[in-house]
Amino acid sequence: MRIVGIDPGSQRTGYGCVETDGRRHTLIVCGAITAPATLSFPERLARIHSGLSAVLASCRPDCVAIESLFHAANVRSALQLGHARGVAVLAAVEAGCPVVEYAPTVIKRAVVGYGRAEKPQVQQMVKLLLGLARAPSPHDVADALAVAICHSHMLPPAGSPARSKPLARAAASVPDRTPRSWRQYRPPARG
Amino acid sequence: MRIVGIDPGSQRTGYGCVETDGRRHTLIVCGAITAPATLSFPERLARIHSGLSAVLASCRPDCVAIESLFHAANVRSALQLGHARGVAVLAAVEAGCPVVEYAPTVIKRAVVGYGRAEKPQVQQMVKLLLGLARAPSPHDVADALAVAICHSHMLPPAGSPARSKPLARAAASVPDRTPRSWRQYRPPARG
Repeated sequence: MRIVGIDPGSQRTGYGCVETDGRRHTLIVCGAITAPATLSFPERLARIHSGLSAVLASCRPDCVAIESLFHAANVRSALQLGHARGVAVLAAVEAGCPVVEYAPTVIKRAVVGYGRAEKPQVQQMVKLLLGLARAPSPHDVADALAVAICHSHMLPPAGSPARSKPLARAAASVPDRTPRSWRQYRPPARG
Repeated sequence: MRIVGIDPGSQRTGYGCVETDGRRHTLIVCGAITAPATLSFPERLARIHSGLSAVLASCRPDCVAIESLFHAANVRSALQLGHARGVAVLAAVEAGCPVVEYAPTVIKRAVVGYGRAEKPQVQQMVKLLLGLARAPSPHDVADALAVAICHSHMLPPAGSPARSKPLARAAASVPDRTPRSWRQYRPPARG
C-alpha cells in the first residue's frame, strides 16, 4: 500500500510518500513545497495546490493521510492553516485519493510511542522506521512522513479479513472530535 | 467593470456577479453553492471549488471580492471556514482574477452605511441598489452581492486618473489586519 502523508502549512507544506505492508516501510519520495511570505496569500495557496497535485500525480498513492489542526492554535493562525489545508485536501480529492486525518498526539503515539514527543524525537523515529541515513529535515517533511507511517500502523495486518476495510478502522482509532465525514473520506468508485 | 463577490461557507457559499460603473450596478447572476453536511468535508470542498470555477468561467469577472473572516469566530468554525475560503480563493487564482478582501464591517458600512447592520438590512439595501423585485435570499447570496457592491464603491470615479489602479485604493481602505498580500492580489500578466 502506498500512502502520501501531508503536513500542510501556509509557508511550508511537507509531503512524504511511503510504501508499506503495515510493518516495513519504504520511502518513495519526500520533500517540502515552500510558499514564501513574499508571495501574496492567494499565490501561496495556488503553489501549495499545484505542488501537491504534481506529487500525487507522480506517486499515485492508495491513500492520503493528513495531520489534523492543532486545536489550541489561535483563530488567526488557524484560519491561515485552514486555507492551506483546504487546498491540500482539494488536491487529494481531485487526485481521486481517499483522505484520512490524524491528530498530532495520535501520530506521535503511533510513531514515537508518546503523544507529547518533541519534533526531534519524531524526526529520529521516522529516520529509524524508514531506514534513512539521516533524519528528514525540515520537520514538516518528518511530520508528513510520520502521518503516513501512523496511518500504516492503523491498518489491519496483511491477509486479515479486515484488510479490505482499512479506513474504517483507522478512523475509529482517531480520538479527536473532527467530524467523521472529514476523518474518513473515500472517493466514489470510478466507472 | 464586472465584479464577482463571494461569501464562502463550508455548507453554503454565496456568489453574485455585478456589472458596475461605480455608481450604477446591474446584477448579472447570483446564487449559492450548497455543500450539504451529508457529504464528507473533502467532497464539500471539491463542490465549492468546482461550483465557483464554473461561475467564474461563465462570468469572466475583472475582479473577485471576498468577505474576510469574522475574527471573533471560535477556532473550530474558523478552521472549517478557512478550508472553504482556501478553495474559493484558489478558484479565483486559477481563473486569473485579482482578489480583494473586505471585513464584514467595511462591507456593511459601504452598502448600508452602518458597520453593524443586521442581515435583513443588508438584504434590503442590496435589493435597492441592484433594483431587484425582491431581496436576495438566502443571506449568503445578499452578502456575496454586498461585497461586490462594496468593492465597486471603493473604485475611483470613472474617468479619474486613479481609475487604472482601483485595487490599490480598495486595499488601502480596508482597516482590518489581514496581511496586505492577501487583501490585494493581482495575477501575473498573461503572455
